[in-house]
Parts: sequence; structure tokens; C-alpha cells
Amino acid sequence: MASRVLVAGASGYAGALAARLVQRHPRLELAAVTSRSDVGKPLRALYPHHRVDAVLEELDVDGAHGEVDAAIVAYPHGAAAPAVAALHARGVKVIDLSADFRIRDLATYEDWYVPHTAPELLPSAVYGLPERYRDALRESTLVANPGCFPTAAVLALAPLAPYLTDVVIDAKTGVSGAGRAATDTTHFVSVDENVKPYKVGAHRHTPEIEQELEAAGGPAGMAISFTPHLLPLDQGELLSCYLRMADGAPPAVELLSAAYAAEPFVELVDGPPGVRDVRETNLCALHVVEDARTGRTMVFAAIDNLWKGTSSQAIQNLNLMLGFPEDEGIA
Amino acid sequence: MASRVLVAGASGYAGALAARLVQRHPRLELAAVTSRSDVGKPLRALYPHHRVDAVLEELDVDGAHGEVDAAIVAYPHGAAAPAVAALHARGVKVIDLSADFRIRDLATYEDWYVPHTAPELLPSAVYGLPERYRDALRESTLVANPGCFPTAAVLALAPLAPYLTDVVIDAKTGVSGAGRAATDTTHFVSVDENVKPYKVGAHRHTPEIEQELEAAGGPAGMAISFTPHLLPLDQGELLSCYLRMADGAPPAVELLSAAYAAEPFVELVDGPPGVRDVRETNLCALHVVEDARTGRTMVFAAIDNLWKGTSSQAIQNLNLMLGFPEDEGIA
Amino acid sequence: MASRVLVAGASGYAGALAARLVQRHPRLELAAVTSRSDVGKPLRALYPHHRVDAVLEELDVDGAHGEVDAAIVAYPHGAAAPAVAALHARGVKVIDLSADFRIRDLATYEDWYVPHTAPELLPSAVYGLPERYRDALRESTLVANPGCFPTAAVLALAPLAPYLTDVVIDAKTGVSGAGRAATDTTHFVSVDENVKPYKVGAHRHTPEIEQELEAAGGPAGMAISFTPHLLPLDQGELLSCYLRMADGAPPAVELLSAAYAAEPFVELVDGPPGVRDVRETNLCALHVVEDARTGRTMVFAAIDNLWKGTSSQAIQNLNLMLGFPEDEGIA
Amino acid sequence: MASRVLVAGASGYAGALAARLVQRHPRLELAAVTSRSDVGKPLRALYPHHRVDAVLEELDVDGAHGEVDAAIVAYPHGAAAPAVAALHARGVKVIDLSADFRIRDLATYEDWYVPHTAPELLPSAVYGLPERYRDALRESTLVANPGCFPTAAVLALAPLAPYLTDVVIDAKTGVSGAGRAATDTTHFVSVDENVKPYKVGAHRHTPEIEQELEAAGGPAGMAISFTPHLLPLDQGELLSCYLRMADGAPPAVELLSAAYAAEPFVELVDGPPGVRDVRETNLCALHVVEDARTGRTMVFAAIDNLWKGTSSQAIQNLNLMLGFPEDEGIA
Repeated sequence: MASRVLVAGASGYAGALAARLVQRHPRLELAAVTSRSDVGKPLRALYPHHRVDAVLEELDVDGAHGEVDAAIVAYPHGAAAPAVAALHARGVKVIDLSADFRIRDLATYEDWYVPHTAPELLPSAVYGLPERYRDALRESTLVANPGCFPTAAVLALAPLAPYLTDVVIDAKTGVSGAGRAATDTTHFVSVDENVKPYKVGAHRHTPEIEQELEAAGGPAGMAISFTPHLLPLDQGELLSCYLRMADGAPPAVELLSAAYAAEPFVELVDGPPGVRDVRETNLCALHVVEDARTGRTMVFAAIDNLWKGTSSQAIQNLNLMLGFPEDEGIA
Repeated sequence: MASRVLVAGASGYAGALAARLVQRHPRLELAAVTSRSDVGKPLRALYPHHRVDAVLEELDVDGAHGEVDAAIVAYPHGAAAPAVAALHARGVKVIDLSADFRIRDLATYEDWYVPHTAPELLPSAVYGLPERYRDALRESTLVANPGCFPTAAVLALAPLAPYLTDVVIDAKTGVSGAGRAATDTTHFVSVDENVKPYKVGAHRHTPEIEQELEAAGGPAGMAISFTPHLLPLDQGELLSCYLRMADGAPPAVELLSAAYAAEPFVELVDGPPGVRDVRETNLCALHVVEDARTGRTMVFAAIDNLWKGTSSQAIQNLNLMLGFPEDEGIA
Repeated sequence: MASRVLVAGASGYAGALAARLVQRHPRLELAAVTSRSDVGKPLRALYPHHRVDAVLEELDVDGAHGEVDAAIVAYPHGAAAPAVAALHARGVKVIDLSADFRIRDLATYEDWYVPHTAPELLPSAVYGLPERYRDALRESTLVANPGCFPTAAVLALAPLAPYLTDVVIDAKTGVSGAGRAATDTTHFVSVDENVKPYKVGAHRHTPEIEQELEAAGGPAGMAISFTPHLLPLDQGELLSCYLRMADGAPPAVELLSAAYAAEPFVELVDGPPGVRDVRETNLCALHVVEDARTGRTMVFAAIDNLWKGTSSQAIQNLNLMLGFPEDEGIA
Repeated sequence: MASRVLVAGASGYAGALAARLVQRHPRLELAAVTSRSDVGKPLRALYPHHRVDAVLEELDVDGAHGEVDAAIVAYPHGAAAPAVAALHARGVKVIDLSADFRIRDLATYEDWYVPHTAPELLPSAVYGLPERYRDALRESTLVANPGCFPTAAVLALAPLAPYLTDVVIDAKTGVSGAGRAATDTTHFVSVDENVKPYKVGAHRHTPEIEQELEAAGGPAGMAISFTPHLLPLDQGELLSCYLRMADGAPPAVELLSAAYAAEPFVELVDGPPGVRDVRETNLCALHVVEDARTGRTMVFAAIDNLWKGTSSQAIQNLNLMLGFPEDEGIA
């Protein structure tokens, strides 16, 4: 029998895609979709190409929505924590797409985000990067789905972490990463024929990447440079990582090959990857260049920010939590 | 009386724009446009929006084309040197848009490019970045117009050069930089919804940037990391420079402010620049961020690769060579 | 001495471009720019690439703003009429970019738009299409600048009007036509990789086109089909006109050639025009195909919606009103 | 046991997508992929995101490739007929993506295309539009997959055909429709920020649409106006149909509703469809507007030119030919 899954916050890009992936999954049933802004609208009116036949409801944790097997919560940070806590309290397995349970250190979270309303759950949350935390995810009831940039950054760098001495990440992302809100920033005329850095030195994914690199054996307290740029495209994310590694470190390509030899969704590729190569897939494509002239190691990582960067990775995590084959519904 | 200017190689993007800028310039007259591939075609058939009423001719250095006052040569590297030498020998003031006379060290040129056919002219060529070589340009009869990436990179970094200890440049460029040739790389479907690094660790603009940083007081033999990325847009170029500066260096913003206070075409701006901000202008917009967390200095530089990066800068140089106001025709 | 020009509503796309064109015009001086939403902001902060150094002010018709020689009013319809009337009452020559004075029949205006607050001025307004009303424009003190679609449609069809028996216009436009407001419709992700008809059978430019075709000798009461489509591009507008003409009508190409032989800004071109061909110009490119198979005449018209479709046409009108050469500042 | 399917010509956009859809189909096995230009290359090197692990081979009809159960032939017109004939002669069920077997009248085919090399097969070919020829397709061994424009046009208009008195179709298409060849037309800089009609009055899909409208009960010898336009997007096709219907005709919306009530892949939608709405689906979205002002009926049809317009429709046809559920693998 199919597991019943709620998607809360399905009127945003990530939630809507999650609903589509749940609906097409052979072992999942889309129990309900909720929204804070579009209650009563068919999801299909907002996202025709997803072809999800469900009507957006108000979230009702105390009622039917608390009785599902699992929930994907696609709320903004801050707003997510209370909903996650309420669903979790009713015994629902939860995957939170927000940042609320990603940062293990409460002070760091509150420093970069907002006051936390459910800090007591932080210790039980597992960081939802299967390539790093597969075993823990199988046992978990609360998964903090990684940010899109950290997904690519940690996949690119964690195997190198013990040897990293300097990290510069220049990230390029499509507009879907900015969400569905209509603003000056997301206006077509602002983005078209443009490229522009944003949140320079201040993007909230920075401490998340640092946390995971340290967890992977990187130097304590390492500060990385992370700078995102907005590009005139819809989906897709490319990270260009400029690294220095300690003397005597093994070649990066060997470390990455060893780490990902058996991984179904991480691929070392022979040439520089473009984001088109992984569009609408759960793949992360990695490419390494050792630059003898400068002594620098470069790693390029391409993902689809809405898929491996968010929603298909949530399904990958759900597969692990529910004991299904990891690639079911997202192969 | 207007100076008569030849544009050789006007069927490419840079040459065609140069022809347009010459035609609209109040003190210049477009004497002729030539092409190696489209002889006999009206330039307007190829580039209607430039509205240049001239027919592409075969280059005739020994005839009328050798009698102009000045020539802008828009040939590929290698092909440019002989044409430049022939025009120069006839007393024509030449601005070469190719790389052939940019690299002062012959061995370095031949290492990165091809055997040089006119090395005897190298000593007389002046590097055409007015903000660095204004006085020499006024006296010059042979100007090597800078590459588009070096234009932005050198404007961003030369004032900091004496203090630079580490330089990573992540460049993003529109497709016009790849030229008019129809290839798999320039096919719309390859570029659209994509972003991709190219020539990683091997782009020929690298030694040009290094030469100019060293000339600006940078450490001898400095090797920079320079990595371009192709974006789904036509014109525009953004350089994101991640720097480390020596202890005790003055703040980068002060060095840049001092260097460019009187420059008409270089602007320090308050927020991160987008390439739209400088589209179809001769401007370079610079923005500095000091990142206290990492101790790194970041400089962002935006230009239009076809304008300040190539053709309007050629006019700026021509104005200097001919004794006109520097901003005539490109303000 | 330069004529002093006010641009009211300069924070929108059309007003901002008008301000730029005024500032660079050799016989005009930009007296002031005003805005209803961004008072106090430098125009350059909103539109860096226009390089207009002026700060947005509140409109003050009774003060300094009523003392200029001419004003370009770039307000939405309905909001424009009172401002236009107030400026006109102070003796300012006004070009209104809105629809408020384009429709000569009050009932038709109010049927398609809103109640009119200054109907007494309708008789004195001249429709600002120089190719149709040049003489009247020279004498006018109040010009109703045409809509962008009507500009292209009337240029394409007016010379054929006496012979037209059936008119279908399929229009394609870039997003700048939708204005600067951030909405679901103008969100990058809504537009990118999309094309979509809008306001089908209900676009307000329809009666304006019909009025002008009737004025050009078309059948009284003719109803045309006009259907716009939104495209993933910034500026540019293409009209594909599918026509039937009365038996015995002269060939369309002859009618158009005769009409526009001496026009500086209308060009009959040999092949189908693209909007790139006229980008950032005051040109309208027309192309005629007689389809023997179907007996239908097709006319394709390309303009830049913000230039000939709005702001550069306003300058063309201003040149006429002020007695300057018609192409001054927009050639 | 899975049916074994060959895709011949898999290095083009349509063939590559067909290979992907075959590989993921639960009842099909991708037997081989062939190419005339890229033999020896892994398909994945050309189209990473399709994730098809197969190497392009030379077509060998007399060997293994003649022993498959079915073949999808993705060759250009003219080149397709001999390959189709050879495969068919070996007992392979063939779906031809080219135009070679679409036009039932040999003279018409040769008038618009090239001399036909296998005219003897024309009578046995079935036009592969399941919504029109479902029963015949179930029995067919040779299917002429429709052109992308005719797919949308015939779905939009066939149910209205008996009543149509005038048909204008203005089509807008993405660049993938122009194929993988790198040309001036497909260069990013030619397409970006542009829209342009092409093959005006001369597109080869015209007689195909006319044939099918006549077959659906339209007036004999009807000549329609069909005009395609190239847009800056990858996949997607929108047809705007401007129609006149005979007096007394039933409302178009009723005719279309009746025709498609039970169709899984044709949808009547409430508002104007955009091509994003059907991106990467086998759907055709139709929308009807009756314009009382002009007495004209408008039908808008949106498809993905590579999916329902070509490759997923081929799978739909294959499902019918092989007796599988019609939506298997493309739902």
C-alpha cells in the first residue's frame, strides 16, 4: 500500500514540484496539498505542466493532515519550524525544505536567520544529504533538506574537506531559486540580458556549507567565500569552486572518485558541466581541474536547484526514511 | 575636416559595431569597410540595426585603403598582424582589435597563440587601455586594443596590483564574445537555459591580465586564476574578483577611488553592478566588498564586452591618437 | 538656446527613456524629471544605463514645472488627463504618452477605458503619428502619442485602408510593454521559455487602430481582429497582419512604397523583419508578401515598442512641435 | 517481454528524445541507436540530461537492426524514405518522423518536397495522429508521424473542419524546431531578443494541414494561410488560429469539447495557454474565444514541439501499434 504524503506550501515552486514527484511516485500517494496564500485553487491552475490534480487546502495539522505517513513542508524559514513541530508531534515523518533545522548550532542559526521556535527538535533533525548521512536518514523522523547551494557545495567539497586550506565558491543560479514572489528582482526586464551578484558576503547558505565541511573533517572555524549570482534562466545552478589544498593532499579527482564511485546521483564528468546537462534530474555533475600554473584545484558542480537542490532530493530522502529503493520515482 | 577611418573585418560583431561608431562620430568619416567573407554585401544586410550604409569590400592596402588616416582592424589573431603591418607601413594609424600586439613578450605570445609574423612592430605598439596608458596613446601610431576580459580585469585590479597576493577571477560573458561563427557552442539550444565554464585554466586572456598587473606594480611572475563562463545573454561581461591583499594595504575602495576619480568611463558604484547597467555604453562599473569574515577583498566589474570591451574603447583610443576629446562620439 | 523639457512619470520605462533622449538631444534641456512613486531617488539608481543625472521630484505644475517649454507626460491612462490639462493650462506644450487623448470619440474612450476628466481638450489633441499628421503636429500644443501597437499597425495598414476588407493582426511583444510593475505576469519564470496570448478580443489598442484606419479611408465601422502575445524578450514588437483587399486594389507594396518613399523612419525591407533589426531605433520596418495561394496580403511590421512605439516617437513629435529637424536626436 | 525498438537518427533532437522515452518505457527496450554523423559517440556525450546509455552505431538494416520489433526513424525528409522502406521490408514496424509518408498525394509531396523514392509504400502508411486515426494505427505497420505544426493545427481545427470558411494560422515556435545544425539562423545572437517570421507563404507543413482538414470534412481545395515565427525559446509551439465559420455552425467550443471529451492528451482550457503549460508533456492545450465584435472564432493551441509535436507522439503511436495502453511511458 502506498504511503500517504502531505505537501504543505505547495503553491511555491519547490512545493509544487514536490507534489508532482509524489503523485508520480509508484509507492507514494499525494494525500493533500496546502497553501497559505492560494487556498481553494487547483494546483493545476498555478502549474499546469505539473499536471497535479489536487486543490490547495488550508493546513489542518489537528485534522486529516496530521494523519498522513509523511509530510514535505515547503514554507519559508521561520514559518516552517512551528508547522514542522506540530506535524512531527502527531507522529508524521517530516522533511523540511526550509533552513530551520539545517544548522545544528542554535546560536549560529539565530545569528543568520531569526529566533527559533522549536529548538528542542534540532538534535533529532538529520541533514538530508543522502551521500553524507544515508544511514542516519533511514532512521530519521525529521529531515532538514539541504539548501540548494549547500547541496552542490557539499557534494563538491566534502570529500576534500580534510585537505582544504582556502575555499572560494562563485555560484550562478536561475531565477526559480528566488521564489515565486513578484519583485523588482524577479521582473523579467531586470533579469533578462543581465547577470548580477547578490547578498555578497552575506548569503545564509554560507554557515550551512561551513558546518558541513567541518563535519566532513575540514578545519574548525574555516570561513569560506560564497558569492551567488543571478542569471537569466529558470532552473539550474552552477558552482565554480576555487580551492587550495594542503601539501601532500591526494589528488582531488581521486578523493571524489572514491567518494562517489557507488553513488547513483553524483557523477564525475570529463568536461566542464553545464546546468542543462542535469536539468530536471536528481543528478549532481562534478568536474575537477588541477591548474598547475597557479597550484589551485578547481571543482565545478552543476545541479538543478529545484530538483537535486530541493524537491527531488526530498523524494530521495523520503525513499530512505520509508525504506524504499533510493532512486524510486526519481531515476 | 573629418579624419577618414577604415574598418577592416567589419562583418564580425566587433568590426560592425566599430563601423557604426565611426559613422556616427562627429569628427570621423567611415572611409570603407572590408571583409574576408562577405565582400559585396551591404553591411546593413548583416546588421540592420547598426544602420551603416556601406558595402563590404576586399581589403586593398596598396590602393585606397592605404590612404586613410586611421584603420581599425578587426581580424582574428594571427590574421591581424600582416594586415596591421601593411597598413602601418603605409602610414596609417592602426588600432588592432586582435591579440597580436597586446603581449609585449614575444615568447609568451607565441606560447599562448601562434608564431608572430610582425614581431618587429611589438616595441612600437601601445596597449590601448586609456586609463593606464593615456599619454603614450596620444603619441602612438599602433594601438593594441585590449581583450574584453583584460579590460575589465585590469580596470578592477591594476590600482590594487602592488598589494595583491592572490587573485581569482570568475568571469561571466554573453555569447557575442564567442563571435559570429555558427557552432555547436553558439547554437541557441546549447546556450539557452544553460551556464557553463570554458577554457578552464587555459584562456588566452590570462597572460594579458598578468602582464598588465605586473606592469601596474604587481609581483613579478604572479599567476592568477581566470575562468570564463558562457551565459544566455548577448552582450555583457561581469568579472567577480576574489582577492587577498598584503597586510597593511590601503583599503581597496580608496585605491580605486583615487585611481578613477577623474576618469569619465570608470565608475565606483554603491551596490553590485549588473551588466545591464552598462549595456551599450563605454562604462566600466566597479564595486568593492571587504569581507571581514574571510579577510578577502572582492571587486566586481561590469562592462559591455562589445563596447568598452572592444569597439567603443577603440574609438576612445582613436580619439586620443587623433587629438580629439576622449569621449567624442561615445559619451 | 535649448528648449526646456519636463518628463513627468520618469520612473517608468517609457518616461525614463524619454528623459535620456531629451538629455542627449542637442536642442533640448532636461528641466526636471518627476515620479509619483520614487520621489527623491536619482533616476540613475533606477536606470543606470540611461546615464541621466537627475533626481526624481514631485510634480509641481503650479511652480517650476509649469514654466517649462514642453512636457512629456508618462502617466497611466486616467491619471494622465488631469496632469496634461494642468500643464497645458499653464501654456506648456504637452506630449501625452497615455491613451487619454488618442481616441477622438469620447464615448468610445469611456467604453474601453475610464471616465474622462478633461474631455474639453480632446478636440485640440493631435494624434502623434508624424507619418500621418505631420502638418497638424507642427501647429499642435497637445499631442496624443500613439500606442505602441497602433504605431506599427497604422504604419503598416493606413496606406492600404481604402482597400481593406478583412484585417487580422497577430502581435508579438516584449515584456517592457507590460511596464515596470512586478506581477505574476512579468515574473521571469512566467515569461521565460513561454509565449502566450493575452487580452484576447479585448485589448484597448483595438479601437485606436480602427479609428486611424477609418481616418485613413478605411470602411466605416470596420472591426479588426487584434491579438497580442507576450514573448520572452525585453524590447521589440512584431505585427503580422493578414489582410484581404478589395478586387482591383493596387498592389500593397506599391501603396506602401508610395506612402513612405520620403519617410526617414519607415522602411520597406526585402525579407521578413525581426525586431532586433530595429532595436533601439526610431525605425519601423515593413515587409509585404502577396500570397497567391490564398489571395491574402500579408504585411509584417517591426518596431522597438519603447522607441518608435513610445519615447523616440515622442521626441520626433517634439521636434515637429518645436520646429526642429524631425530626426534631431533620434537619427 | 519488452519489445525491442531501434531509433535511427538519434543524434538529432527528435531522435535523441525518442531514445530517452523508449529507454524509460516499461514495455520497450532500446535495441540500438544509430546516427549518420556521430557513429561511435555515446549518446550521453551529446545529450547528458537524457541519460541514455547507448553508443551511436551505423545503421545496419541487413544485420541486427533489421531484427528489431519496431523502429523510429528520425531522418530528414528524402533521406528517410529509403531507410523506412528497407526496415519495413524486413518486417520491422516503422514510425517515420519525417514528412516522407505524410502526404498521401504523390504529386503534392513531390511539389513541396523532393522526388519520392518509395511511393509504393504511401498507400500503407497511416497518418500518426491518434486522435484522428486511432483504429487504423492499431493495425498499421508504417506510421507517418505528423509534423509539429500540423499536430497542433489539426487537433485545433479538424473538429471544426466542415464549417470552416477561412483559416489563418499564426504559429510561434522555439528553436529546437530548427534542428541541431549550427547556422546563422540558430546562432544565439540571431535569436535572442528577436522574433521573426520565416518561410512566409511557403512552409512545407501547409499542404499537410490542408490534407488533414479536408480529410476531416473541410471544403475540398481549401487554401489556408500558415505563417511560422521563430522565438527565443528552446521547446514549445503556439498556434493562434483566426477562423471564420459558416453561418449556423455549432459553437466551436462545443465541437471541440465533443471531439476531445475522452482524449487523454487533448485539453480544453479556460484561459489562453502558454507553451510552458505543456512543456515536456504529450499534451495539447486548446482554448477557444468567440469574438462577437468581428464574428471571428479564435482557437489557440499549445504543444511541446519535441514531445506531442514529435517524439512523445511517436511513443503514443508505438503504444497503439504494439497493443499497449496508449499513455504508457508518456503519462
